[in-house]
Amino acid sequence: MKDNQNCVIGLDFGTDSVRALIIHAADGAELATDVVHYPRWKMGKYCDPASNRFRQHPLDYIEGMERAIKNALSRAPAGTAARVRGIGVDTTGSTPAPVDQNGTPLALLPEFAENPNAMFVLWKDHTAIREAEEINRLAKSWGGEDYTRFEGGVYSSEWFWSKILHVLREDESLRRAAFSWVEHCDWIPALLTGHTDPRTMTRSRCAAGHKAMWHASWDGLPGEAFLTRLDPLLAGLRERLYRHTRTGDQPAGTLAPEWAKRLGLNTQVVVAAGAFDAHFGAVGAEIEPHLLVKVMGTSTCDMITTKLTPQGEHLVKGICGQVDGSILPGQLGLEAGQSGFGDIYAWFKNVLMWPIENLLDSELILEIENSQLLIEQLDTLIIPALSQQAAALPIDESGLLALDWMNGRRTPDANQALKGVIAGISLGSDAPRLFRALVEATAFGAKATADRFISEGVPIHGIIAIGGIPKKSPFIMQVSADVLNMPIRVAACEQACALGSAMAAATAAGLHPDLPAAQKAMGQGFDTTYHPNPDNATKYQRLYERYRKLGRFVEREWTE
Amino acid sequence: MKDNQNCVIGLDFGTDSVRALIIHAADGAELATDVVHYPRWKMGKYCDPASNRFRQHPLDYIEGMERAIKNALSRAPAGTAARVRGIGVDTTGSTPAPVDQNGTPLALLPEFAENPNAMFVLWKDHTAIREAEEINRLAKSWGGEDYTRFEGGVYSSEWFWSKILHVLREDESLRRAAFSWVEHCDWIPALLTGHTDPRTMTRSRCAAGHKAMWHASWDGLPGEAFLTRLDPLLAGLRERLYRHTRTGDQPAGTLAPEWAKRLGLNTQVVVAAGAFDAHFGAVGAEIEPHLLVKVMGTSTCDMITTKLTPQGEHLVKGICGQVDGSILPGQLGLEAGQSGFGDIYAWFKNVLMWPIENLLDSELILEIENSQLLIEQLDTLIIPALSQQAAALPIDESGLLALDWMNGRRTPDANQALKGVIAGISLGSDAPRLFRALVEATAFGAKATADRFISEGVPIHGIIAIGGIPKKSPFIMQVSADVLNMPIRVAACEQACALGSAMAAATAAGLHPDLPAAQKAMGQGFDTTYHPNPDNATKYQRLYERYRKLGRFVEREWTE
Repeated sequence: MKDNQNCVIGLDFGTDSVRALIIHAADGAELATDVVHYPRWKMGKYCDPASNRFRQHPLDYIEGMERAIKNALSRAPAGTAARVRGIGVDTTGSTPAPVDQNGTPLALLPEFAENPNAMFVLWKDHTAIREAEEINRLAKSWGGEDYTRFEGGVYSSEWFWSKILHVLREDESLRRAAFSWVEHCDWIPALLTGHTDPRTMTRSRCAAGHKAMWHASWDGLPGEAFLTRLDPLLAGLRERLYRHTRTGDQPAGTLAPEWAKRLGLNTQVVVAAGAFDAHFGAVGAEIEPHLLVKVMGTSTCDMITTKLTPQGEHLVKGICGQVDGSILPGQLGLEAGQSGFGDIYAWFKNVLMWPIENLLDSELILEIENSQLLIEQLDTLIIPALSQQAAALPIDESGLLALDWMNGRRTPDANQALKGVIAGISLGSDAPRLFRALVEATAFGAKATADRFISEGVPIHGIIAIGGIPKKSPFIMQVSADVLNMPIRVAACEQACALGSAMAAATAAGLHPDLPAAQKAMGQGFDTTYHPNPDNATKYQRLYERYRKLGRFVEREWTE
Repeated sequence: MKDNQNCVIGLDFGTDSVRALIIHAADGAELATDVVHYPRWKMGKYCDPASNRFRQHPLDYIEGMERAIKNALSRAPAGTAARVRGIGVDTTGSTPAPVDQNGTPLALLPEFAENPNAMFVLWKDHTAIREAEEINRLAKSWGGEDYTRFEGGVYSSEWFWSKILHVLREDESLRRAAFSWVEHCDWIPALLTGHTDPRTMTRSRCAAGHKAMWHASWDGLPGEAFLTRLDPLLAGLRERLYRHTRTGDQPAGTLAPEWAKRLGLNTQVVVAAGAFDAHFGAVGAEIEPHLLVKVMGTSTCDMITTKLTPQGEHLVKGICGQVDGSILPGQLGLEAGQSGFGDIYAWFKNVLMWPIENLLDSELILEIENSQLLIEQLDTLIIPALSQQAAALPIDESGLLALDWMNGRRTPDANQALKGVIAGISLGSDAPRLFRALVEATAFGAKATADRFISEGVPIHGIIAIGGIPKKSPFIMQVSADVLNMPIRVAACEQACALGSAMAAATAAGLHPDLPAAQKAMGQGFDTTYHPNPDNATKYQRLYERYRKLGRFVEREWTE
């Protein structure tokens, strides 16, 4: 190790855990990393999957972050802490929480410590379906600006305003205490820098632009008239939120003394403005204009950037949003994705695990010495074993066809009220065949979004995949390449989001002139490439037409 | 036991096993019973579930029957054998096999012993979908008699002519050797009486009328012109089949010396003409005009009888058939049913069993001492455990809705190309919720057929249930009663088919003047009655409308 190299920390807050990655700013060489799972979340606290309510306690974030950074530093070569120059932060989103006047999330106050409404409303929480519908209806009908137009024209229940409105309506005690709201990726940099006043804290450009209908052309957030017409409950909130935003390559400030002390770092460390995990993942995976970066995990996030035209912005219909600088500075960042991807395989796995998880302790079953271990082992083995058997099946042999809307549909054309379907079931439809149909459905869902980019005039020159699935499931990746009929390169980096976060930190700290330069210096390239098989692609094109047809019927007739 | 009482034997050949029931002809008191599983069938021989090919070897029937009768006689009080006066026979159907000039099923000849095409084509074999389509097309278009009109206007791939045509086309060696064809329920009485010439053996009225387009108004089977136009392969076959049929209350003959010796019975024993299991089941369950008898097992068979009108027969559209005397003499016997019922729950159970059945012997799993026993225990427990949990769920809580066409649709409007669907899936759709949706789907399928009877002018005055499911699943029965919105009485008899078979034997042997008299003397009444809950019935009516809507779409758009 060269003694004087500058280091940066990339923090990546995922759905289940937070990662800290310490690397050299000059060449991206990894020094240490650590992952800490959120303890309360892991116990299922504050959540109700049956009603799609998913909340996270801010203490999970604070405790997790502190432990992850300290663990990583303790593993890094001696003297690393003193050479840390910057911290970058990415989180899931839209994951907002109500805060008081000091910017403290309400769940950190004793009276709200156990109230799920006072916590972060996780991206995949779908309790606000009705509120999203109201926002969409009003935006189209009120006669003023359609504030949804840079977010694909359809506002989602997964997003900022839907969630705020839902929580405020549902919880009167909270309504009185909620001074303002923060995104998870606004709050972590605010906390670390000590600039927590919600009216002045650094706000994330990508969260604002993609999820909060923020746009320069209407001077920030949607106008007061629109918001109060939506619900008088929102009166005045706009002024207690923000007008200005920063992209992730800009600093939010330097480390507050309290946090410098807690982490064993110095107060000159620059903390970059936060961004969503997927966006920094795209940066870490070396996104370039017209390369589609897919984060493939429990859900997917599909990102592409395109040059801003001098004539103004071309509107892409039915995707999550298009925001100047949200991914790369000077480029329009476009975001889309699937509400359910790996979650759908996990759902099927859980269905198959039901007998094992529920019946092993029955008196009618022979006693097994270590049944908990057996359950864990089977849980781990099921998806790989299903993948292996499903991969051996010919395409379209089973007659099965599924719709991948088990968690709603994010794009194209957000509709969280949609549900999944499995059609073409026969008595011979065994578990590997059903699994294959689910994998195909998720690939069809990916194609629907990619096709939308192309049909809206944003050509795709290549695909890069990051996230958990590209590394561990060649079967799912091959089906995806065949269905999309394009090669998919898998980023070599195991932790692209944290790497992108570190690239942003290095840029914000002035160690690289801009984000593309940081990408070039710190990037880790690609390993596997999945090439489409032309025969399979032809067969899938036909199946895809059937997927679209079934989808149109279900959407037309099946949404309640 | 009174010493001089006459006894009869009811033989019931089911899908998996054959039962022999020995009872008193006077009062139906049971003396002994025995069940023997078909050994080759149990091993999965000659079948290919993936292509819906299900064949049974005649030796399974012969060996099973002989053992079941002997076992039952050995358990019955001493002297029973000498008091046996009649044997009745019911079998599954349409389950035809090719025979030579002597009426010997070809699989009993050495050169065809292992050829599945030379065996009985089991009722649920769906290899002849294309042939059924051809029959339907020709029947509607050829300008002559529409021979399907007494079979609901739609001929099924599960039936006699479809199967014959499929096997003859597929297998040239067999084409040369197949002199004629027999139904399973034709062949057993022929074998036992020794009258095996296929041109003169006693042919079952219900098999002929319900499955072979036999009708008195066109002098028996469909005309030669129709058959040869369907395929020249069929030329001459009509003359090598039959013109006359007998109802199950009539004798087919007396026991042949060889069989009398083998079974330890005398040659005066009357063997009744055979019938389908469901029809004799309805007799055993004390069917009366306008009572709907539902045999609820792997599939269902729904039967009702109505008076023949002097003006001729009213045609009921889209059911399997209407045949004079097929169930009760002097009544028009109407038959309908679902291709999959318990089979659908078994399919789901098998999907859930996949990890346990496939992964327990993996090296990555801890070793379990008696894994085979564990598998068997779980296999037995799953459906009762799912039923218990599903029963506790409110109606329509899950948003799930399924179509019960996993094995095609028998009625209303036969279409074996249809497939099952599960719609409305969310990430919270766990195994009990999915199971509940499947149970509701099978009940909706039952309602679709009951409604068809009513809308076609055949009122239903009550419902009687027999078969395995009514005895073992209160949950499924309650959902059925709620969906059908009618009380369902469960026949007390555990073996209604064998009992009906014995009633037929007693009538054919002259021990009762007619079948209704035998029913009255030998019937065993009812135990549980499931009453519909009015609130549930109202909710299910709404869900049923959605079931119909989804069904119409799938049928219109999804049949390939």
